[in-house]
Amino acid sequence: MTGLFITLEGGDGTGKSTQAALLGEWFTEQGREVVFTREPGGTDLGLELREIVLHSRGDITARAEALLYAADRAHNVATIVRPSLARGAVVIQDRYLDSSAAYQGAGRVLDPVEVRNVSMWATENLVPDLTVLLDLDPKVGRERLDADNKRFDRLESEALDFHVRVRDAYLAMAASEPDRFIVVDASLDRLEIRDAIIARLGTRS
Amino acid sequence: MTGLFITLEGGDGTGKSTQAALLGEWFTEQGREVVFTREPGGTDLGLELREIVLHSRGDITARAEALLYAADRAHNVATIVRPSLARGAVVIQDRYLDSSAAYQGAGRVLDPVEVRNVSMWATENLVPDLTVLLDLDPKVGRERLDADNKRFDRLESEALDFHVRVRDAYLAMAASEPDRFIVVDASLDRLEIRDAIIARLGTRS
Repeated sequence: MTGLFITLEGGDGTGKSTQAALLGEWFTEQGREVVFTREPGGTDLGLELREIVLHSRGDITARAEALLYAADRAHNVATIVRPSLARGAVVIQDRYLDSSAAYQGAGRVLDPVEVRNVSMWATENLVPDLTVLLDLDPKVGRERLDADNKRFDRLESEALDFHVRVRDAYLAMAASEPDRFIVVDASLDRLEIRDAIIARLGTRS
Repeated sequence: MTGLFITLEGGDGTGKSTQAALLGEWFTEQGREVVFTREPGGTDLGLELREIVLHSRGDITARAEALLYAADRAHNVATIVRPSLARGAVVIQDRYLDSSAAYQGAGRVLDPVEVRNVSMWATENLVPDLTVLLDLDPKVGRERLDADNKRFDRLESEALDFHVRVRDAYLAMAASEPDRFIVVDASLDRLEIRDAIIARLGTRS
């Protein structure tokens, strides 16, 4: 049995954890061992780093923060992902290197290609077998989350611009690596989405 | 007044903090503002990371540890070193990127060139104006520290081999960048060492 590394990407509220659970159930029914993980915070070290990043926010420079995420990623890959893949498990991970590139690219502080290079060094070039991009117009996602308040103030509009740039960055990455990515309309029914992902898995040799 | 970035390198017990203090006094007498810093742990974030690295040792993978040191370095450079240099201060720092390369190279786990590249990204390529390598035969240093016990057991001999490799790595780096490095015999008197460093500073244009 060959290990399989699947990552879920997309903005907040696009249903990544729902799909992780549905895919996990499906693989378990197929008799596969399933390992769930996430970034940041998939390991004990990651949880400590997540605390530092969240509680010191504003005091941490951009490069230091990117390197902390990369340290978390290095540790998660070395201690959870690679050993699981080696024994043939399916690893389903909520966010991975594409998150760093998309969010850094959208934030316009650091070069996303450089951020990706740091991650590739951190993980010894571990690329997912399949990356599911749950794609949703951020405005729709926002309206779903907060149906009573559809007018954006200035800060909220800036936040929306940011999330539009995150989405654009994700879509550009998916377009540049069509063999690795599947892009799914996250406004569809959750079972439809799951079935689309499973259908794509069936086309893998 | 132009800022000046001086780093002190060498094994433990070679007198780096003594020379930092002596150089600091000398620059203060010259009317210069002096800022002392160190790695790891020169900032609040660095102290937290140092705690994590020291208290979780053995549980942290090599790449994660290298990235945590790089995060500390990024933060120290961005919040302490660069602002100090910008206002014309002399920054005297105990250990910097050469420590990472020398210790990683000696440990033979990670490629020291790759570790250095991560540091260069972390610091936006900040290279010291002068790096003082305090060079000492690790066996002499060891005998100084522990004069009553001159025979090494197996573990101690392995430790000694490691420190011999650290020294060799330092000397190779100094040889490859003679304009940046001054190599001083750390067995000399501390004032002789200080004077040799100051004489070298006088030759800078």
